[in-house]
Amino acid sequence: MMIKKIATFLLGLAIATNLMAQQKNSAVAELGNTKLEFILDQNGVPQYAAWYKGKPIIKKSAMGFKLADQVNLNSNFELLGADKSDKDESWKPVWGEVSSIRNHYQELKVHLKEKGKNPKLLDVVFRVFEDGFAFRYEFPKQPELNYFIITAELTQFSLTGDHKSFWIPGDYDSNEYVYTTSALSQVDAWKIQKAATDIAVRTVPDQFAVQTPLMLKTADGLYINIHEAALINYPAMQLHVDRSSSSLSTNLVPDALGNKAYLHVPFNTPWRTIIVSDKASDILNSKMILNLNEPSVIKNTDWIKPMKFVGVWWEMQTGKSTWSYAESMNSVDMDGNLIASGKHGANTKNVKKYIDFASKNGIGGVLVEGWNTGWEDWFGNWKEEVFDFVTPYPDFDLKEITAYAESKGVKMIMHNETSGSATSYERQLDTAFRFMNKFNYPAVKTGYVGKIIPRGEHHDGQWMVNHFNRVNQKAADHKVMIDVHEAMRPTGLHRTYPNFIASEAGRGNEYNAFSDGNAPEHETILPFTRLMGGPMDYTPGIFKLKGYASYAPSRQVHTTLAKQLALYVTLYSPLQMAADYPENYEAHMDAFQFIKDVPTDWDDTKIIEAEPGDYVTIARKGKGTNNWFIGSITDENGRTAVIPLTFLEKGAKYIATIYKDADQADWKNNPEAYKIETLKVNAGTILKLKLANGGGLAISIKKS
Amino acid sequence: MMIKKIATFLLGLAIATNLMAQQKNSAVAELGNTKLEFILDQNGVPQYAAWYKGKPIIKKSAMGFKLADQVNLNSNFELLGADKSDKDESWKPVWGEVSSIRNHYQELKVHLKEKGKNPKLLDVVFRVFEDGFAFRYEFPKQPELNYFIITAELTQFSLTGDHKSFWIPGDYDSNEYVYTTSALSQVDAWKIQKAATDIAVRTVPDQFAVQTPLMLKTADGLYINIHEAALINYPAMQLHVDRSSSSLSTNLVPDALGNKAYLHVPFNTPWRTIIVSDKASDILNSKMILNLNEPSVIKNTDWIKPMKFVGVWWEMQTGKSTWSYAESMNSVDMDGNLIASGKHGANTKNVKKYIDFASKNGIGGVLVEGWNTGWEDWFGNWKEEVFDFVTPYPDFDLKEITAYAESKGVKMIMHNETSGSATSYERQLDTAFRFMNKFNYPAVKTGYVGKIIPRGEHHDGQWMVNHFNRVNQKAADHKVMIDVHEAMRPTGLHRTYPNFIASEAGRGNEYNAFSDGNAPEHETILPFTRLMGGPMDYTPGIFKLKGYASYAPSRQVHTTLAKQLALYVTLYSPLQMAADYPENYEAHMDAFQFIKDVPTDWDDTKIIEAEPGDYVTIARKGKGTNNWFIGSITDENGRTAVIPLTFLEKGAKYIATIYKDADQADWKNNPEAYKIETLKVNAGTILKLKLANGGGLAISIKKS
Repeated sequence: MMIKKIATFLLGLAIATNLMAQQKNSAVAELGNTKLEFILDQNGVPQYAAWYKGKPIIKKSAMGFKLADQVNLNSNFELLGADKSDKDESWKPVWGEVSSIRNHYQELKVHLKEKGKNPKLLDVVFRVFEDGFAFRYEFPKQPELNYFIITAELTQFSLTGDHKSFWIPGDYDSNEYVYTTSALSQVDAWKIQKAATDIAVRTVPDQFAVQTPLMLKTADGLYINIHEAALINYPAMQLHVDRSSSSLSTNLVPDALGNKAYLHVPFNTPWRTIIVSDKASDILNSKMILNLNEPSVIKNTDWIKPMKFVGVWWEMQTGKSTWSYAESMNSVDMDGNLIASGKHGANTKNVKKYIDFASKNGIGGVLVEGWNTGWEDWFGNWKEEVFDFVTPYPDFDLKEITAYAESKGVKMIMHNETSGSATSYERQLDTAFRFMNKFNYPAVKTGYVGKIIPRGEHHDGQWMVNHFNRVNQKAADHKVMIDVHEAMRPTGLHRTYPNFIASEAGRGNEYNAFSDGNAPEHETILPFTRLMGGPMDYTPGIFKLKGYASYAPSRQVHTTLAKQLALYVTLYSPLQMAADYPENYEAHMDAFQFIKDVPTDWDDTKIIEAEPGDYVTIARKGKGTNNWFIGSITDENGRTAVIPLTFLEKGAKYIATIYKDADQADWKNNPEAYKIETLKVNAGTILKLKLANGGGLAISIKKS
Repeated sequence: MMIKKIATFLLGLAIATNLMAQQKNSAVAELGNTKLEFILDQNGVPQYAAWYKGKPIIKKSAMGFKLADQVNLNSNFELLGADKSDKDESWKPVWGEVSSIRNHYQELKVHLKEKGKNPKLLDVVFRVFEDGFAFRYEFPKQPELNYFIITAELTQFSLTGDHKSFWIPGDYDSNEYVYTTSALSQVDAWKIQKAATDIAVRTVPDQFAVQTPLMLKTADGLYINIHEAALINYPAMQLHVDRSSSSLSTNLVPDALGNKAYLHVPFNTPWRTIIVSDKASDILNSKMILNLNEPSVIKNTDWIKPMKFVGVWWEMQTGKSTWSYAESMNSVDMDGNLIASGKHGANTKNVKKYIDFASKNGIGGVLVEGWNTGWEDWFGNWKEEVFDFVTPYPDFDLKEITAYAESKGVKMIMHNETSGSATSYERQLDTAFRFMNKFNYPAVKTGYVGKIIPRGEHHDGQWMVNHFNRVNQKAADHKVMIDVHEAMRPTGLHRTYPNFIASEAGRGNEYNAFSDGNAPEHETILPFTRLMGGPMDYTPGIFKLKGYASYAPSRQVHTTLAKQLALYVTLYSPLQMAADYPENYEAHMDAFQFIKDVPTDWDDTKIIEAEPGDYVTIARKGKGTNNWFIGSITDENGRTAVIPLTFLEKGAKYIATIYKDADQADWKNNPEAYKIETLKVNAGTILKLKLANGGGLAISIKKS
């Protein structure tokens, strides 16, 4: 690492000179197309502004905090100095979209002192990358601040116009909304919240707040993405939209008392990230968020293995079977034992069917939900003790299933639904993980459906952020991979905890079962929003796209079958489900071949075409292979994807297997019509392939 | 058990007759001197009233609840029926003041139905004892109520006059106040709270609320004690005083959101207890609260053993040594290791001194506080991660101490201070108890000094009530006895969890070290208030009564030495500390003989004389022996205790060893002056012995 100390500002010290008097209270950092300026105005208010290729992207925006006991840290500062340094390094993720990541930035660290009676120190660290910039606050160890409570973070993002935005409401408990595409001035979170009756717990106190990652597009074609990185011991950031000025300001998710964070110096906040480019594909290519997270705290990562899985799950979502064993809590015999309803999905015979299918098709894992007692009465009662995480229902023969899976070379994936009772889960965490180790479960899908306990806390507040990180750490101690559902949206922490292998924290495929579902454009927005922070367990791969929901026969998935295949490439996850029933796959084994073939870990990734809300085409190279896989999807409008195969090895010959929409395919009327073709290709080939309305395209390319 | 069904009221049913029409909406239960009437008034408001020897003690008082979602359960009821039954049984406690307890009551159970749109069922169960009555609410399983939230309990206690009362403020987080003796009309909780700067965490939102047990005395000489029994899954009850009407009403301690209890049918509330007599001694004799608790849930109780202990503790209270190892968190060497201050009390050498003393004198246990890392920075910061409960300071050689104690026949007592971070303790509970088992600790003193985490919860709210009971259960699973400090005040739960062997939950002897201390009357009030619910770890036995506090040389304990001895009888605890330093005992080994001799478990107890705030004289017979021990204490006024020894075996001859105040003794000017005499006594002896101002008297009587 090369560090250049710049001429440091020493305005607060006694050595001021005439030269000093002329200097501005400002400092600049710059890299590639991005320029960042820090300014301390005449009232001692810290501000920043930023430009991309000379165009302003963030106008002067204020920074700071309010602390408990009426301590304000947002003005009356003096600038003690500034340090600048450059970094250019590469590192290798345990798994991911590429095998090596470059981390190249210029850092500017400004040292501020609040000039009050009990002067407090606050540093702001900016990092300017080629694809944007980020900053965080650092509270150094100091005499006048030790333990403290943040009651508000005052960071602003003052935008240059009323940009087109892709947003969901600023909900303290959910990220599972449909994205709205609108001008910023049209944001109305309450309208969306009110309509979203398919989401169990919704808490949106601010009518004009949105979640991050927030995707924006300016009138002159700049793409801007605002999110955060390395969310540790701090609440999630939401953005309040001032609809008249296009200025965004930080809303931190509060605790039960309305406070935001309980902290102790030294403390660094998460990074606030602004990714910017005039090409949408650069947004998807950005590794800024990962780079801003700390390296892995897990030394030996050999046991962390990306994988695909099937599971006893979609059949509960569709109403074919149930999580619960009995009809209700009251369905008991004279001894008080539950009476089997006959509809319980997680029974030994049914689980074996999934194991057989997985084994036969090289799918690594089988998830089973509803295997443990408690499902008759688990939901919506805000009760603290629901599940014990170790007691199977009587028709789930754990030993037999464990032995059978082992004999078939398949791993079982654990399921721990907490119903939001984090206190109860924490009490049982040791026991739950020891149980997974005993029965050789390599991964667990956790769930938090319901209002959080401790009561008054929210899914996205500091306490739960810490809870989720504690679970990641405890899982690492037990060599278990985590796939968390209903958590706060990720912020790149899978760099630090590579066993944090996936999460939901967004509107997944499941909404196509129990609600009106996800519009055709949904999956074209997700990469620009939810997936900016990390992999998503979206559960793609539905082949029977109509008539699957017994309780709502007209319900359908809003994609074609080919598009479901494409999602395995366009929505990256190292833990990737093939979500449909074995029998639905068995009806289309030629198409299922793509799911069998597609990797979950990659050496390289090329974003071919992308426009949020419209289309995404991505090519990826399988880890340790010469095989490429391409996924292309479109929204409700059909289009022709143009895919130059320039990434292939020059001179080498390849066979491409193309899974595409049939000519008459259409997400609404003819979703399951697909065609499979093979084609000889090379680095000079430019594929031009038609996607149906709501359609997609998947291609596997191997050397011939 | 004999059950008599009385003619049941069936007013809500269709079989009404002329006879029914004449019947009142009321029912009566009666036993000995106590009479109780339940009345449903014309608005369907449930009420009760009570009499002792024909005199009203509770005037018509309302009952009921408010539930969330605007559901009121306090009027518009109809009476579906009433059952009456009698019970007279005896049971043997695992340990206690007597070896056998009679449980004799008449029970009246009224069945109510709220006549609203979604009619709800509520039962009220009254039990009338010879020494008062109790009642609880029962929410039966029913169609229109399943999960529910109590937002207010509306139980009233409408008293007959402006009684003299012994009270402390209705604080959500502390019971460690000095008792105020005043008319009810003079209750002002805020005045007391404001002055009580020696209590770390104080939360008293209601200016006119008091804690229970509340001790009352009427103008015509009736003693009334109001408390609760079997506090499980519910917040502690406090009493709001309407100063003009002398009516008390229930304040339940709220959670972070202001709710009181999250419940699920069937659910029974704790019992509201009203003990009454015209003799103060009957209040102390009452076993009603124990009788209202459920029998032990612990099957094998052999491992539960009352004991005395000494400890490395008073020396930290007095400032002679410290809990912490280093001066502060910042006192670290270049490797970041703490630098020893040289004042750390819990060092191996010092601990061995206590072990030696205990072993030599037949004291069973040694407590050591400050043995584990974290004490440099533990207090007052509301931080969640403070202690790990398994890591000793470098100068505390755990293996050596364990081996040494074992070789000396002494048990070590564990100390787990949580600083109020219950969530952190729950996460570590398995580990903490496994550690105790590994190192053979039979008991743990737990502590909760500080604001509670989950933040917004209180020491006495439902969540913490559940926490404390969870710890009792987990301790039972590991065969560990619990002595909890800074918990809610006990309610007789040690019947159900006999390993819950003591608690603080009141103002202990320690206040004589770090504050202005406890007035001479304090220990004469405690038996009528704090101890009504269960044993108190008061930590008596201070022999050096002046000049012990290095930082406040004028500080002194407000008793004589003989009174310190008497407390071992008057303040019952099966886990009883000899709190002073070994060297202070070694200076008075003749007096220490009483502490060596006095048991911690009893076959029988006689309350000889008692008046709250003035004096208490109690005689007890050691478990499985013919030895009697007497303790007598007075307030700031000297007096002559008159003690007829009629409880001794007729015709048998005894030797009494009398530890009394010397003639010139006085708590203020000459507290350590005592005299020891022996005397031949028998059942006909009437001892008349003088107690100094703030003085006391201890007697051991053995057969000669």
